[in-house]
Amino acid sequence: MKTVKDAELRRQEILMTARELFIKKGYDKTSVNDILKVVDIAKGTFYYYFSSKEEVLEAIIIDIVEEGATKARRILNEQSIPLLNRIMMAMMAQKPDFEGSEEIKEELHKVENVKLHRIYLREMIKKMTPILEPLMLEGIDQGIFSIEYPTECIESILLLGHMMFDDSDVFEWTSDEFPKKIQAFLSNMERLLGTKKGELEILIQMFGQL
Amino acid sequence: MKTVKDAELRRQEILMTARELFIKKGYDKTSVNDILKVVDIAKGTFYYYFSSKEEVLEAIIIDIVEEGATKARRILNEQSIPLLNRIMMAMMAQKPDFEGSEEIKEELHKVENVKLHRIYLREMIKKMTPILEPLMLEGIDQGIFSIEYPTECIESILLLGHMMFDDSDVFEWTSDEFPKKIQAFLSNMERLLGTKKGELEILIQMFGQL
Repeated sequence: MKTVKDAELRRQEILMTARELFIKKGYDKTSVNDILKVVDIAKGTFYYYFSSKEEVLEAIIIDIVEEGATKARRILNEQSIPLLNRIMMAMMAQKPDFEGSEEIKEELHKVENVKLHRIYLREMIKKMTPILEPLMLEGIDQGIFSIEYPTECIESILLLGHMMFDDSDVFEWTSDEFPKKIQAFLSNMERLLGTKKGELEILIQMFGQL
Repeated sequence: MKTVKDAELRRQEILMTARELFIKKGYDKTSVNDILKVVDIAKGTFYYYFSSKEEVLEAIIIDIVEEGATKARRILNEQSIPLLNRIMMAMMAQKPDFEGSEEIKEELHKVENVKLHRIYLREMIKKMTPILEPLMLEGIDQGIFSIEYPTECIESILLLGHMMFDDSDVFEWTSDEFPKKIQAFLSNMERLLGTKKGELEILIQMFGQL
């Protein structure tokens, strides 16, 4: 008899296989049949868990975002680290590392996978905004930040950070341009957060690129 | 005998047809053959002008961006309009209106056309940044702005404005949330531009949504 645990394992097996196929072959070129073949299940079993390939993709991305959010939460709870450092570290830690494989990252930047990126961005902002919001309020209380619209401030920072540094095909910056772009980003973050000037610049070494 | 003018007309004919097909059928589902059939030309003629379907798409988007940039330049040259109003009007005017058709706009927001959007964003920022840069410097000279990184300030504003208000599938805001989102965006713009507080809020009626 199948248990709840078996069902959850089967679902995870489908997700892991699909994730691998989407990355190797591209999302568009992977069919539900391709997934069935590798997992070795019937079509009906697949559709018991997911209504479409699109739904599988969304579930995978939500998993990736959740993995990042878990890392961020762990850092944000470290009360011994100063608030600003914690926020910066959490924002950098939540980036998906896709098991650290450069090959997979390159694959994700190909045009065919733009759909995947798009859903990632939407889900990442949806998940990370409420996680970072209490930290904004803590910063306001401590007099480090001066923010009128905390939610929108985080939304803007997450969007800018992601589009500029995690998703390199909108801005085609050369490696020579990067140091200035990072400095400008930190300066713009200071303005959005309403910190003292230079407050974030001392955290620049975190980027490890200057 | 074919003239240079004929060649340019033929190129434009291919672009116009492809633009219509990409919008109607979606980019992925349109083949080079579909384009050939409608324009009624041989394969060789097509490949004389473009090396691939992707190249046609890029050319279409560069045309759309150029159309927007032309509108923006016209406004930015209107010396009689105050600087801040000119910048806001130019940023809003450069949005592609796709001949004003709601149907086409909806089509462009479908997931399949995410590729098209991506190239649009990249080309729009590439084109609009140098157009707006002299205005930033003018604002600094006039003491209206206080900006350390003018190029990056424009890049951030264009990116945020586009992703938040022209490209509605990243943030799934309800119409109730919009007034606050617009106010927050203007407040964040003020911070990035280093204007006096409230300087942009008086321009809020331009959004016509509050």
